[in-house]
Amino acid sequence: MRHSYERSKFYRSMFRQQNLTPDDIRGVEDIRKLPLTSPSDLSSDPYSFLCVPFEEVGAIYTTAGTTGKPKKVFFTKDEIDKSIELGSTLMRAGGLGHGFGPGRAVQIMFAYGRPSWGAGYITQRMIEEAGGLPIPASNSLSPAEQLELMEEFRPIAIVGTASYVYRVTEELSQSVELSELGVRTIALGAETWPERVRQYLEEKWDARVMDQYGLTEATFAVASECSMQDGLHLNEIDLYVEMVDPDTGEPVSPGEEGEVVFTTLSRKAMPLIRYRTGDVAAMIPGECECGSPTRRISRIRGRTDDMFTIGTGENMYPSFFDGALLGIRGVVDYQIVLTGEGMRDEITVRVEAENPSEELRQKIIESVLGVRSIKHDFEVTRAIARVEVEFVEKGWISENSGEDVKRRRIVDLRGRYPA
Amino acid sequence: MRHSYERSKFYRSMFRQQNLTPDDIRGVEDIRKLPLTSPSDLSSDPYSFLCVPFEEVGAIYTTAGTTGKPKKVFFTKDEIDKSIELGSTLMRAGGLGHGFGPGRAVQIMFAYGRPSWGAGYITQRMIEEAGGLPIPASNSLSPAEQLELMEEFRPIAIVGTASYVYRVTEELSQSVELSELGVRTIALGAETWPERVRQYLEEKWDARVMDQYGLTEATFAVASECSMQDGLHLNEIDLYVEMVDPDTGEPVSPGEEGEVVFTTLSRKAMPLIRYRTGDVAAMIPGECECGSPTRRISRIRGRTDDMFTIGTGENMYPSFFDGALLGIRGVVDYQIVLTGEGMRDEITVRVEAENPSEELRQKIIESVLGVRSIKHDFEVTRAIARVEVEFVEKGWISENSGEDVKRRRIVDLRGRYPA
Repeated sequence: MRHSYERSKFYRSMFRQQNLTPDDIRGVEDIRKLPLTSPSDLSSDPYSFLCVPFEEVGAIYTTAGTTGKPKKVFFTKDEIDKSIELGSTLMRAGGLGHGFGPGRAVQIMFAYGRPSWGAGYITQRMIEEAGGLPIPASNSLSPAEQLELMEEFRPIAIVGTASYVYRVTEELSQSVELSELGVRTIALGAETWPERVRQYLEEKWDARVMDQYGLTEATFAVASECSMQDGLHLNEIDLYVEMVDPDTGEPVSPGEEGEVVFTTLSRKAMPLIRYRTGDVAAMIPGECECGSPTRRISRIRGRTDDMFTIGTGENMYPSFFDGALLGIRGVVDYQIVLTGEGMRDEITVRVEAENPSEELRQKIIESVLGVRSIKHDFEVTRAIARVEVEFVEKGWISENSGEDVKRRRIVDLRGRYPA
Repeated sequence: MRHSYERSKFYRSMFRQQNLTPDDIRGVEDIRKLPLTSPSDLSSDPYSFLCVPFEEVGAIYTTAGTTGKPKKVFFTKDEIDKSIELGSTLMRAGGLGHGFGPGRAVQIMFAYGRPSWGAGYITQRMIEEAGGLPIPASNSLSPAEQLELMEEFRPIAIVGTASYVYRVTEELSQSVELSELGVRTIALGAETWPERVRQYLEEKWDARVMDQYGLTEATFAVASECSMQDGLHLNEIDLYVEMVDPDTGEPVSPGEEGEVVFTTLSRKAMPLIRYRTGDVAAMIPGECECGSPTRRISRIRGRTDDMFTIGTGENMYPSFFDGALLGIRGVVDYQIVLTGEGMRDEITVRVEAENPSEELRQKIIESVLGVRSIKHDFEVTRAIARVEVEFVEKGWISENSGEDVKRRRIVDLRGRYPA
């Protein structure tokens, strides 16, 4: 705190605006006296966050810029070395544990170079450091070329983004028995992905699919699933993580969804205080069966900027209906179309189904009405006027809405939700 | 030697074919008892070169495959760490010395990912290790984007391939005063390039242009220019380098051109014995004025597979005429066209000139006749029947022959030189 206050132009002015000095922040609880820091603060003037002379900056990584323009994050050489050490230890100890060992190949399907400086490079270094053999395939190969590498090096693990790994799997599984290739772990990061992707990949590869949550701003690793696959363990060595209400900034209770906000604990070059990630998750109460005492968060539900409301206004995210709808046998894909005027919403569920039937239609409607708050708004407040099902051809949804998660899941025609 | 003999299938059978055992190789001189190893040996079965269990392989790099299919080179983790340490020491001590220091940015314009796994990654690690600040721009940005990065980070050095750096320079220099950007060193590697590129770049950037010679097979760094810019100092810590006649395999004298052949001195995973690089250079006699006692080689003249003969048959390389022709004021670019039948060659020099004139034509003919052996074959043996000049429009040569050095420099219509 003192370091940030004394060295960073941005944080000095933040403390002053609040009439605070570092002496006012004595413990973790006091941190709430400080306001949140937003990604736009960082992208508009990264140099105002810099707390060491520029001569001491040893690495600059840029974010892929999922939303908005790419942000720059500065590190000292020491910080990079330490984060690689830590990352490789987590890899060995955590979900990727059984995928590592001397000479065990790990195929990297992250991008190298633009748009994100860092993901490929850092992953490669962590795997090397953990004693694995990195195969830097990147995401610029064809699925057939990925297969060629797999057949030669027999990787025990794959790391990459869900969308790319999914594409490779979809194409290769037409002609190859992927489960025979020996891949035992697939670690997916850098994107959110629906739970059905896990089921699909686990089945095709006969491997465990592990979720990783990381951000360049947080030195990449924020949280990773353990072998229990029951929430992601936070990297509490480097980060203090809070869950806050994205509107008020107030803390939410354990189990309740909020925005992930973190404070770096030992960063010299560019400490971040109460940094808003824009990602929505819940803190999971209780200890994990794996025995690790570190706190866990749920998988990322979505992004605050993808948030929308239905009926009387509970916050929802594009993947909100995944559990209700993708759990129904025969439902291949779905899309929620919102229409209606004023406060009376109408919900149409577009469904790609194996065998459309009246029975399936009823099941889908029941399931949607089972979603918390929707039943109440439908039966009690009447803020939801109608729930309907429209069957569409297979492939229709992705063809008509592209790969963007939000556009794919939610088509809001109510005129109060920006497209 | 013993390690290679005992562990590598390839070398064991090589020793046996020669009726040799490791005991027969007692000193550096004895190495000539062994035959040369060719790149095709390596690409056809890289695993027969492997001298450690595959579990100990920590990194695999592939060559860009300038000629032929990509080759795989295996390293232990230890070897990579050591080569990065050595490389960064050489960077600090050698030609890039004055370009480094804490926080000094170095813009990397090598490719990341395919076709060569390694160049970008290894360069980035060496720069980090040397205390520099790597800017991993890669060669996939537009010249304008490269400029944007330079304006922000003010790199003191650029590393990249000559062809890409040249393109960036050519485009940016139309509108930008490059010498004001503060770049002081440009290190060019991974390709051969004509001396006039050095003059051009040094003038535009007001920087020193240093030649680097490296190969993936040799752990990247084979030789680098020192600040004297008078030959490249060999990395004799890792490699024993010989110059041999590419046809007979016999050693050539210092000062004479031959094929660069190296033997690794301490590699465990994949030692190479008398490995043919296909690159042609000469050992430079005498010590360098910089004071370093390490031996020097000339810049790479070309590749053995680019070799051709004129007249009675002296070996020549595509860049052979650079000195004679690009030294003439007003000559912008040139191309040698060879015609003729049997042993009577005719040489036409296509020239892009600032101001074509009869006087310039005479100068060019004189200069070509000044090239060693051509005058003799023209006047004495008559193996060269004619030397002519044809002026062409500016840009004509690259438009009609692409960027391939060989096709650009030599158009052989004699029917005894494969196109």
